[in-house]
Amino acid sequence: MFYAVIMAGGSGTRLWPLSRQEHPKQELKLVGERTMFQLAVERLDPLFPPDRIFIVTRANHASALIAQAPQIPAANFLIEPEGRGTAAAIGLAAIHLRQHDPYAVMAVLTADHFIAKPEAFRQALSAAAEVAREDFLVTLGIRPDSPATGFGYIQQGESLEKDSSPAGFTAYRVERFIEKPDLDTARRMVDSGEYSWNSGMFVWHVISILAEFERQMPQFYAQLEGLASYLDTSSYGEALKQVWPQVVKQTIDYGIMEGAQDVAVLPVDIGWTDVGSWGSLVDLLPADAQGNRWVGPHLGIDTHNTLVFGGSRLVATIGVEDMVIVDTADALLVCPRDREQEVKEIVRQLQSEKRSAWL
Amino acid sequence: MFYAVIMAGGSGTRLWPLSRQEHPKQELKLVGERTMFQLAVERLDPLFPPDRIFIVTRANHASALIAQAPQIPAANFLIEPEGRGTAAAIGLAAIHLRQHDPYAVMAVLTADHFIAKPEAFRQALSAAAEVAREDFLVTLGIRPDSPATGFGYIQQGESLEKDSSPAGFTAYRVERFIEKPDLDTARRMVDSGEYSWNSGMFVWHVISILAEFERQMPQFYAQLEGLASYLDTSSYGEALKQVWPQVVKQTIDYGIMEGAQDVAVLPVDIGWTDVGSWGSLVDLLPADAQGNRWVGPHLGIDTHNTLVFGGSRLVATIGVEDMVIVDTADALLVCPRDREQEVKEIVRQLQSEKRSAWL
Repeated sequence: MFYAVIMAGGSGTRLWPLSRQEHPKQELKLVGERTMFQLAVERLDPLFPPDRIFIVTRANHASALIAQAPQIPAANFLIEPEGRGTAAAIGLAAIHLRQHDPYAVMAVLTADHFIAKPEAFRQALSAAAEVAREDFLVTLGIRPDSPATGFGYIQQGESLEKDSSPAGFTAYRVERFIEKPDLDTARRMVDSGEYSWNSGMFVWHVISILAEFERQMPQFYAQLEGLASYLDTSSYGEALKQVWPQVVKQTIDYGIMEGAQDVAVLPVDIGWTDVGSWGSLVDLLPADAQGNRWVGPHLGIDTHNTLVFGGSRLVATIGVEDMVIVDTADALLVCPRDREQEVKEIVRQLQSEKRSAWL
Repeated sequence: MFYAVIMAGGSGTRLWPLSRQEHPKQELKLVGERTMFQLAVERLDPLFPPDRIFIVTRANHASALIAQAPQIPAANFLIEPEGRGTAAAIGLAAIHLRQHDPYAVMAVLTADHFIAKPEAFRQALSAAAEVAREDFLVTLGIRPDSPATGFGYIQQGESLEKDSSPAGFTAYRVERFIEKPDLDTARRMVDSGEYSWNSGMFVWHVISILAEFERQMPQFYAQLEGLASYLDTSSYGEALKQVWPQVVKQTIDYGIMEGAQDVAVLPVDIGWTDVGSWGSLVDLLPADAQGNRWVGPHLGIDTHNTLVFGGSRLVATIGVEDMVIVDTADALLVCPRDREQEVKEIVRQLQSEKRSAWL
């Protein structure tokens, strides 16, 4: 059977002041009236019934997420005592799924990206599951439309035999994973046509990924198997609390994917946006005749190409051009659109000045 | 005896979104921790003891002002049922003062201007009172330091004889009052050295101003005398409510000063600022090394010559230059400093769109 695991433990700060430690991106209503997490759950319908959707999150976010997706059984929310990186989160989900269904195929999905074509997304997942059933670890690759330097890239190798490439899709062996590149490297990769962005979404047999944990992260694998022996017992919570702080902090890319055997990439066209900054949100919101994007009550005089992400308060602008204005209950951001990457500098300064109320 | 009458009925909108219909400029803390009204009261000490300070205001503002100046007897707050212009407000105060003291000299003062030199201000008022005792209507004139087009101007005529010019001051007969000029006219007037700004502050005998009301606004004078007959009776409130809506709406400048006999101007140097726009506030707030003025918590990265007037919320800026950002509980303004005069356009649009919550 095919299961979805949504990774919802992140705490991005690049959408400060809206995203906060306690209110990460997946909990925000960035596009319309649904949170990013709700959109991530709802686009799985009808491919995954709610009882085959699992969520990995952290204790401080769990209740908010459970409230946002009441159709998912509460037991499917797998709660990490603390974040230990994506390798740990995926390992935890893997032992839970194996307990459920030893032959489970598992889709690892993100909670904080936007996918404009949910139908194509579900088709891509089904196609990836076919490749995964041939014992590949499958990465969903995004065809790059710009030389972005904020993503990892995947170089494709030989295409898989027809049997392993489902209708309408071509899967490739992964030649290598490339970390976030500089702009020149990114340009060359995009021009070559051989590279996809690493979406952070994967499909594989639970058995396959656990075998790779055993091979590449044996200590973590032993911890996982130790924990697995407590599944469905009353001591599970205590065992998790004991072992988790000792688990190595590692990403799935470094820990497993880069050294894994039989890794495939399935380039897909699903209207993917990582919503990694205020600028990327511009493409997702409708523009007025002056190229402005407005969320919340507003009054703009001679205002152009500006993103105003507000709430209930009135945002009035005069003679404002190419700006980002983000207005939240306790903090306000004003910056030019071409400098929105410096938002992380704001967060860094708040951290160093210990102004934690605004973090 | 010498009395102060503070006109506190205004409802300026040029400091929107901080100033509102229900919270006009005089009620705001623009410079430090005291409201403009409190500063207006406190700079009268020790020239006027609290029982010789009267306030003219409107019913909807009275309780806020009484709370801000508890040292003034509540009976000294003269409440207009509705605003009928400065002529009406001054007439009302005049009959009250005459009842108190038929030989009263009355200083008409503003509640929403900033005066940087309170000591010089009190000396100027004492000097003006000396001139007023010679039966002149005295206007405090401000020596212009720029060709401002937002003020009325006063042209001085012959200087008054030494007897009428107190030590350190020279009073002049007023040649004429000039309405808000265009820039060229303003330049010529400032260059000539013969003109002062009309501060809207006056000193005169109650008897003198009432005589001018009788001569120039006889109908209003009759209404005032009718009302005066109810002073100190239980029917006063009812009589005021009856007559006030029938009173002609008029300013003291048009209604009296321009046509009055024996008008003097006393040019004074009191550090006067009308605080008529966000830009004018810049001069009153201390600048940081980048020329920014900050009120409230803030974090500026590469931010220059910007006024941020906030409150309790954090205002974070990146790469912002020469802007005005005003952050209030329910509305936010962002505009370049050189366009702050267009704030009134915001208010006009809110009015025409009937978005009264923000007015």
